[in-house]
Amino acid sequence: MRFGVNYTPRVGWFHHWLDFCASDVARDLDAIAELGVDHVRVFPLWPLVQPNRTLIRRTALADVERVVELAGERGLDVAVDGLQGHLSSFDFVPSWLTSWHRRELFRDPEVIAATAAYLGELARVCGRHPNTFAVTVGNEVNQFTGGVHPEPYAADEADVTAWLDAMIGAIRAAAPAALALHACYDATWYDDAQPFTPSHAAELGDVTVVHSWVFNGTAQRYGADSFQTRAHARYLVELARAFHRDPAREVWMQEVGAPRNVLPEASVVPFIEHTMAQLVDAPELFGVTWWCSHDVGRELADFPELEYDLGLIDAGGRIKPAGVAFAEAIAASRSGVQQTPTAVQPELHWSLADGGRAACAPGGTLFDRYMTLAQSEGHPRIVLDDAGSPQCTTPSN
Amino acid sequence: MRFGVNYTPRVGWFHHWLDFCASDVARDLDAIAELGVDHVRVFPLWPLVQPNRTLIRRTALADVERVVELAGERGLDVAVDGLQGHLSSFDFVPSWLTSWHRRELFRDPEVIAATAAYLGELARVCGRHPNTFAVTVGNEVNQFTGGVHPEPYAADEADVTAWLDAMIGAIRAAAPAALALHACYDATWYDDAQPFTPSHAAELGDVTVVHSWVFNGTAQRYGADSFQTRAHARYLVELARAFHRDPAREVWMQEVGAPRNVLPEASVVPFIEHTMAQLVDAPELFGVTWWCSHDVGRELADFPELEYDLGLIDAGGRIKPAGVAFAEAIAASRSGVQQTPTAVQPELHWSLADGGRAACAPGGTLFDRYMTLAQSEGHPRIVLDDAGSPQCTTPSN
Repeated sequence: MRFGVNYTPRVGWFHHWLDFCASDVARDLDAIAELGVDHVRVFPLWPLVQPNRTLIRRTALADVERVVELAGERGLDVAVDGLQGHLSSFDFVPSWLTSWHRRELFRDPEVIAATAAYLGELARVCGRHPNTFAVTVGNEVNQFTGGVHPEPYAADEADVTAWLDAMIGAIRAAAPAALALHACYDATWYDDAQPFTPSHAAELGDVTVVHSWVFNGTAQRYGADSFQTRAHARYLVELARAFHRDPAREVWMQEVGAPRNVLPEASVVPFIEHTMAQLVDAPELFGVTWWCSHDVGRELADFPELEYDLGLIDAGGRIKPAGVAFAEAIAASRSGVQQTPTAVQPELHWSLADGGRAACAPGGTLFDRYMTLAQSEGHPRIVLDDAGSPQCTTPSN
Repeated sequence: MRFGVNYTPRVGWFHHWLDFCASDVARDLDAIAELGVDHVRVFPLWPLVQPNRTLIRRTALADVERVVELAGERGLDVAVDGLQGHLSSFDFVPSWLTSWHRRELFRDPEVIAATAAYLGELARVCGRHPNTFAVTVGNEVNQFTGGVHPEPYAADEADVTAWLDAMIGAIRAAAPAALALHACYDATWYDDAQPFTPSHAAELGDVTVVHSWVFNGTAQRYGADSFQTRAHARYLVELARAFHRDPAREVWMQEVGAPRNVLPEASVVPFIEHTMAQLVDAPELFGVTWWCSHDVGRELADFPELEYDLGLIDAGGRIKPAGVAFAEAIAASRSGVQQTPTAVQPELHWSLADGGRAACAPGGTLFDRYMTLAQSEGHPRIVLDDAGSPQCTTPSN
């Protein structure tokens, strides 16, 4: 099982790409390596790499490649995401897709070709280093669809299928040795209006990706120290598995963090311990990648308050108690302390006809039935009796 | 009288800031100097200098400063604009002002403080070089108000007054030796809905700035080779002068260009010749700055077609016939060939009550009366009989 962190540069956050400094990155990666992780997830900013539709900057790719090399020198593997896109409440969309030049991100053939070209170049440059193990289309690209975003780009389920096929195809062609993936925030699983569906997550790409954020209502509803809050990450893994056709397909908990807006400081370390203990026990888990490596420096403005404290390492470079807890969880997993053979899981049968994706969300019927069973008998395996229903079918192509 | 060009970098257009290369800039400035100009107007991209509200990147400012130095080494003065903002159809607005972080550009006190801080830093860094003669708030910042922009920021006339006072004040305080200016596209003069008014242009800042683009309906209505099309720039100067309280206040034709979407290639050189001849004859003209130095390279996508051919120098670095015509107009002006003493101008009395700003626009009553008189008796001086009307009053503060 893989353990890693999402790399948030200590100086300048992701604006560090504008002042790329290999020695700063090296220092950050040294601190990250101390946690005992085996990988980092890395995030270029899309408008900086592709400021014009037909301009993919070589120097920007070279900077990303340098991060891959620096990670490799420290024994760290790398997963790189392309379309950022969205990070910690900020959107970064190139000027050729906004305002006077606004055009369909998910539907316009020229845009699709250009974004695929970017992902292909990124995958090619990173993929020639053997420590690049995964290329993800972009961080929570489903942020840009649906009714929540203030300026959503239109896309229905079929559009998303075609778009993901193009993006993942471009990655696969350029970096055949790396995993080709896409990543969504949990509206994919919980929101019936989301055109990125569980089937997109569970069928497209080489691994199913989940991101677990308990500020999604879970901690607010059940409490910071509740079973539900600490079991949410594991629940998402089980929910994702329920949509798998291939029983051997793996799930990557690519983002999980301890948001202080819903977790008091005293709850953070227990949250990490319990979350990790339940995750590492999950079948077919590919790995866990914590969000995030470094706190956002207070000199940067306008982040949601919780973003300033998500790091395992503080803005001064010191490993925080959360970092120690994560490191200990990794060490315990590797030493086998917590790896008792997984007992046969109880089964929880469910029909998506009973409430759709909303039933899966915190407070939903499936969510609550799952948690009740998990508490009494251990984490169940969810069996969808209608995994072929229209809402969750694998798109046709 | 000053003559200059708006500097559009030959390689990478304004994305060159991402790959700043002093030798490329030096080469571009060498070619520009060959035209015989005395200055360039320079455009940083706002999101690259201030990617976070509280992060003003030293290295970005240093790159701008390097351009000032390189220009100085070639005997060129520099005018720098801050809030780009808008350039050649593309908007560049930082992520802390868009999407999830959208907030009032012209009204939010924190935003106003942050943008003033940026302009102050830019003015301070450039202003310590004696060849920086002007700092402009931003290129056509009024693009972001009014009903035309796809995502306008709200602002009424009083908001604009307060905002411009803050921006120009920040520039003045940081670079007392330079001119502090603001610049609008011609909706300020022609569109009654524009909250940036003629009075803002004519009263705030050290010089009144006008931008002349005959694709605004003039060339379409009157013809590429018409008197009106070739006189439009001079007309704008006279229109601006009409709003001056101080008769010695100068007008800067900061942008004028020959857009091929309305000017056939055969009309370009005559357009430049006639436009320049009429401009240099204008009283109280501060200078003329042509748009632009270099063609946009065809390898860059999505520009409006006309933007690829606006340069005086082509994408290969060769001076075009338009560049020769501009250089000859400068030489002629300096040699005094065209500088016959300005005859006493006929007066054209007008009341803004008769049609407001719309009457000033191409096809409007004032516009047509002006052109008729200009053709028969020479360019008139416009006398506004109601220059204190509500629509055009100097804002109270």
